[in-house]
Amino acid sequence: MNNQTLKLRRVAIDTYHENVAYLHRECELYRAEGFQALSKIKISTNNQKILAVLNVVDDEAIVTPTELGLSEQAYQQLAAPDDCLISVDHAEPAASMDAVRRKINGERLALDDFVSITQDIAESRYSKMEMAAFLVASGQNNLDRDEVYFLTKAMLQTGQRLNWGELLVADKHCIGGVPGNRTSMLVVPIVAAHGMLIPKTSSRAITSPAGTADTMEILAEVNLSPAKLHELVRKHRGCLAWGGTARLAPVDDILISVERPLGIDSQGQMVASILSKKLAAGSTHLLIDIPVGPTAKVRHMRQALALRKLFEFVGDQLNIHLEVIITNGKQPIGRGIGPTLEARDVMQVLENNPESPQDLRQKSLILAGRIIEFDPDVRGGQGFAIARDILDSGRAMEKMQAIIKSQGAHTIDFTPGEHCHEVKAKYSGLITAIDNLQMAKIARIAGAPMDKKAGVDLIHKTGVSVKKGETIYRIHAEFVSDFAFAKNLATQNDGYTIEKK
Amino acid sequence: MNNQTLKLRRVAIDTYHENVAYLHRECELYRAEGFQALSKIKISTNNQKILAVLNVVDDEAIVTPTELGLSEQAYQQLAAPDDCLISVDHAEPAASMDAVRRKINGERLALDDFVSITQDIAESRYSKMEMAAFLVASGQNNLDRDEVYFLTKAMLQTGQRLNWGELLVADKHCIGGVPGNRTSMLVVPIVAAHGMLIPKTSSRAITSPAGTADTMEILAEVNLSPAKLHELVRKHRGCLAWGGTARLAPVDDILISVERPLGIDSQGQMVASILSKKLAAGSTHLLIDIPVGPTAKVRHMRQALALRKLFEFVGDQLNIHLEVIITNGKQPIGRGIGPTLEARDVMQVLENNPESPQDLRQKSLILAGRIIEFDPDVRGGQGFAIARDILDSGRAMEKMQAIIKSQGAHTIDFTPGEHCHEVKAKYSGLITAIDNLQMAKIARIAGAPMDKKAGVDLIHKTGVSVKKGETIYRIHAEFVSDFAFAKNLATQNDGYTIEKK
Repeated sequence: MNNQTLKLRRVAIDTYHENVAYLHRECELYRAEGFQALSKIKISTNNQKILAVLNVVDDEAIVTPTELGLSEQAYQQLAAPDDCLISVDHAEPAASMDAVRRKINGERLALDDFVSITQDIAESRYSKMEMAAFLVASGQNNLDRDEVYFLTKAMLQTGQRLNWGELLVADKHCIGGVPGNRTSMLVVPIVAAHGMLIPKTSSRAITSPAGTADTMEILAEVNLSPAKLHELVRKHRGCLAWGGTARLAPVDDILISVERPLGIDSQGQMVASILSKKLAAGSTHLLIDIPVGPTAKVRHMRQALALRKLFEFVGDQLNIHLEVIITNGKQPIGRGIGPTLEARDVMQVLENNPESPQDLRQKSLILAGRIIEFDPDVRGGQGFAIARDILDSGRAMEKMQAIIKSQGAHTIDFTPGEHCHEVKAKYSGLITAIDNLQMAKIARIAGAPMDKKAGVDLIHKTGVSVKKGETIYRIHAEFVSDFAFAKNLATQNDGYTIEKK
Repeated sequence: MNNQTLKLRRVAIDTYHENVAYLHRECELYRAEGFQALSKIKISTNNQKILAVLNVVDDEAIVTPTELGLSEQAYQQLAAPDDCLISVDHAEPAASMDAVRRKINGERLALDDFVSITQDIAESRYSKMEMAAFLVASGQNNLDRDEVYFLTKAMLQTGQRLNWGELLVADKHCIGGVPGNRTSMLVVPIVAAHGMLIPKTSSRAITSPAGTADTMEILAEVNLSPAKLHELVRKHRGCLAWGGTARLAPVDDILISVERPLGIDSQGQMVASILSKKLAAGSTHLLIDIPVGPTAKVRHMRQALALRKLFEFVGDQLNIHLEVIITNGKQPIGRGIGPTLEARDVMQVLENNPESPQDLRQKSLILAGRIIEFDPDVRGGQGFAIARDILDSGRAMEKMQAIIKSQGAHTIDFTPGEHCHEVKAKYSGLITAIDNLQMAKIARIAGAPMDKKAGVDLIHKTGVSVKKGETIYRIHAEFVSDFAFAKNLATQNDGYTIEKK
């Protein structure tokens, strides 16, 4: 375990949230110390120490035997100049891995444990494997509600926290799982037009056919600098921006980058993730939307209630005013699924177009109404009417136009993808169900969200009687291969349940 | 999801058991498809498809925007020539990840699930994260005994299986945790001298101060080709080789490479790991040694019994004759800890040197005796006497010399590391306990197993009365810095419990 000295070299490989070090196979140090591939090493300068996973290199164009290469992330973290002399040593695992092992063994962890874990993750001391171990061990129902609170608080402590300097900063969040559900783009202009501060930042779609940021991007620029965002929110009381540029609860982003590819999702982690992000963004009042339905994320009312209590418990501990609304998640909301089609729906509602999807309008008014009732000057039960007045009078549209202009308006074109396939009813009868998962899958295969114009446009929804051969929805795509895949998928399973008469 | 074509390039980075693909940030494909760092991609030629984790590169010396680079492992798996045209696409996670998610959710998996998981792992379809998720989900007591059997059987199916063409192929295995416990190097020559086939392959130390392979290497070459190994075993009935060259139960090696850095260890995985390796090596009769003691791997007799039953259950299902012996793990076995010192102990026992450590001799005779009783011609209870006769008569030493010669004798030098520190008794009294973990740690910090001559040499063990200031053990090291660290560690905690008179 004798330290040895090598010259630092930057290796222009982006290994995302994992530090990777590159050593040449002929490097004396590698040979003497018997470092094994995959083992972690400690890299030190006089001022700084970092941990990195080791990759062994056989090409001197990448590193020579007297150099140690660092991936972008690691290089920036070490913050030392090229060719600077560094020492390398075996690394002990991050100290908080002891707590992770206790969690694997089924023990309950304390606040201190979660703070150490999130700090070590924020400082890139965890390998992706170690993060996966933490996520699986604390997944499912392995965190009790106190632990969810501890994890939320710990994640909140690792990043910046915005302060808007106002007593009431509203936000909304839907736990997801229902396609087309673009309510934020209606709630924000309505609530901001009422005068409440609602600085909404959203994510891009990762597993869904469109996120709010992808959809807003059809109308305006969403990639805003923190300074620009602040200015805009001050002026218009609201915004619809992409949340990726601010360093809010960064550990949440890192954990999501592991959670998503693994496809694991637990209630405790979801609550901690949502609340740490919202609190970091400076929200004081938060409305959580939990859609319930057989093909939604939450399938039974009893699950929705358990989740509501967990949100309420953690929210109360962290002193945020939090309300939960349980909504109908039995079918997609609105008509369009995919960025362009969803943006079209939103604009139809704002225009008070009689053709606009009424379910999207209605749901957005309910949510906006509940948020407006956070205002102490609004009498309980009056929120909905206020929201409706704002929408009907055109004030919501005015506000939206102002926000679009400030963020930077894009040329609007709602023409969907040129390749179009009409899916027909297989029987005559009543549409009784539409499968959220299948519709999302067809829209994604058609190219959404990458191809903005791709997606699905629903013509008839549940409660409507159709005749055999009548068009129930259209698939739009921009590329021939995507189009063929999506058509094929819809032919196998069109996602509609029609009860024959 | 439209395929695009890039030129293949080999990138000489060894990413161990994980496929990594390198795309330039300016590559059209990367930009168009919005691949995100860390996401998995599918790489196809006309004949072959592989999955790989994506790293983004900003240096054209590594890959240019029209190339796709592959790490060594991935390049070999794709088996296509440089500059060949390949298609790249988003990858779905390996199908068996569904089973892993079911395991995370607490479900019981079937044999088919374990077969799919191990096949996907063997074919590098799992990222390290995904392997960690599988290990944590199936860790602790999350596998019932049927699942342990399924996992063992599945791991066995993924690799080669040796067939020695004999009805009785003996082996032994100790679950570990007791330093100095080098019984295999005595059991093999005794059992082989009796005429039983015992083709023992061993591992190198990973977390301990010496493995059997490291210790045998003091005496002879241990890195043997499969052909050489076979020839040697036919001739001498036994060998003491390193097991790393044969591709036996390769999934076990891959999982261990994830398990070790995570520091997780579960009974189910240990049983599956040991039995799949032994069955793949062609063993028909196996003796398992479970040392029990307060600082051993297994701390209580009830745990040892549970583990015994699990070994027996899985062994019976897989049709291997398996016996378990529970031994005293209250202190290190023998005197030396570290390759050179342990090899010296072994040779003293074989020489029938009166100075030889009696506990090592006695334990080895008990184990060898139990194995000799696998022989149908040996009367129950006679094994120990036969083993003792073989050792006392010098036939065990003759056999060992023959094995050493055949494997390739090394020049023997038992001189320990030149830096020597004598640790003295702090009180006068009776030595009542020696901490296995602390002694192993001191020996490792002193440099073992990398520095073969480094380690700890125990002068007095439990049951002996010592006077204050008398030497209880010596620390040997080859490097000054290691020596200082080890001395320091022993000063903090010498690992001995001495009851004052």
